[in-house]
Amino acid sequence: MRELAGDLSLLSINTATLRKQLALSAVIEACARRGIGGLSPWRDQVQAAGLAQVARHLKDARLVLTGYCRGGFFPATDAAGLRAALEDNRRAVDEAKALGAPCLVLVAGALPGALAGKPSHKDIRLARAQVHDGIAATLQYARGVGMPLAIEPLHPMQGADRACINTLEHALDICDALDPGRTGALGVALDVYHVWWDPKLAGQIARAGA
Amino acid sequence: MRELAGDLSLLSINTATLRKQLALSAVIEACARRGIGGLSPWRDQVQAAGLAQVARHLKDARLVLTGYCRGGFFPATDAAGLRAALEDNRRAVDEAKALGAPCLVLVAGALPGALAGKPSHKDIRLARAQVHDGIAATLQYARGVGMPLAIEPLHPMQGADRACINTLEHALDICDALDPGRTGALGVALDVYHVWWDPKLAGQIARAGA
Repeated sequence: MRELAGDLSLLSINTATLRKQLALSAVIEACARRGIGGLSPWRDQVQAAGLAQVARHLKDARLVLTGYCRGGFFPATDAAGLRAALEDNRRAVDEAKALGAPCLVLVAGALPGALAGKPSHKDIRLARAQVHDGIAATLQYARGVGMPLAIEPLHPMQGADRACINTLEHALDICDALDPGRTGALGVALDVYHVWWDPKLAGQIARAGA
Repeated sequence: MRELAGDLSLLSINTATLRKQLALSAVIEACARRGIGGLSPWRDQVQAAGLAQVARHLKDARLVLTGYCRGGFFPATDAAGLRAALEDNRRAVDEAKALGAPCLVLVAGALPGALAGKPSHKDIRLARAQVHDGIAATLQYARGVGMPLAIEPLHPMQGADRACINTLEHALDICDALDPGRTGALGVALDVYHVWWDPKLAGQIARAGA
């Protein structure tokens, strides 16, 4: 942290970390006051404050977005649920665009109902197939809007309830499959909290940057 | 489970699951009475009951061991600690031999002190290097005794405190490095509790069995 001590403009705050302490407008003010340069806001906090108001506030405060959290949660138990997830992801893409975010972060989702403690099944292959198809469909829409998507692998301890993409390698395999030309429309977001354990991490980061 | 209902001889009980309910001798009796065919005993339970007594009891009860739990926990903060871990693993190999176990299961270990809540460092690469060297040294001894070693990858949620080998692929990479001829002296033990989340699981199981 010593190198950063004089340059907080390199820091970006994920607003989920302050959800319980501050409203989004107060987070924006606090970051601007301290010279913190970036912000990754969450959808619920943006919706509570109003999309247009937040966009204006960010501009006035000269804060740069480093991502918009989050799309994803694609798996569902029926066609209507899958469709609703895709519609919600399209709205998230539009919001990210309105805010000037550089990407929409995707937390894939996993077994339907698991986050509420009642998984409707235990077929992680099915969830992964639905995630693949959900990203493919959202990517098609996001390309049109000009909003990159960033797949965030989550720690395997959350593989059943939050995200069934649990390694950087898996995320990059999906990128290669859905964006073989590496157009920049699909990439990854990495959180050290989720990936520190991965023995292939360094090699896969090199792959991502190649 | 329907297929197994008539043939409990295919089941093996890991005695850690009954540690709080029964002494090892009572577990052996209970398994034999129910026609359960196998047992994977733990070192502390064997030591409490006496190695020779347990070996005789298992033979009388006609229970087959499916493994002996466990060696490993190789990382340490100094040379004396590393040496002590190797000595302890040699004792575990000898005990496994005395019991007629088909393999000694290795839980690698991770950051020294982490299991007690006080990790002495956070260098997982160092821990992994020490695990690699510890398995290599133990393998040399175990080959002489004729006792196969089985590396058990643990879920990444235990990557800091119990085992820094967290995928089957990583375990098999170590097997290939240390037993390139696939002599059967080094293999893996899989627990679905630890590996269910792994997107490469099926492919790596095929690799292990190739």
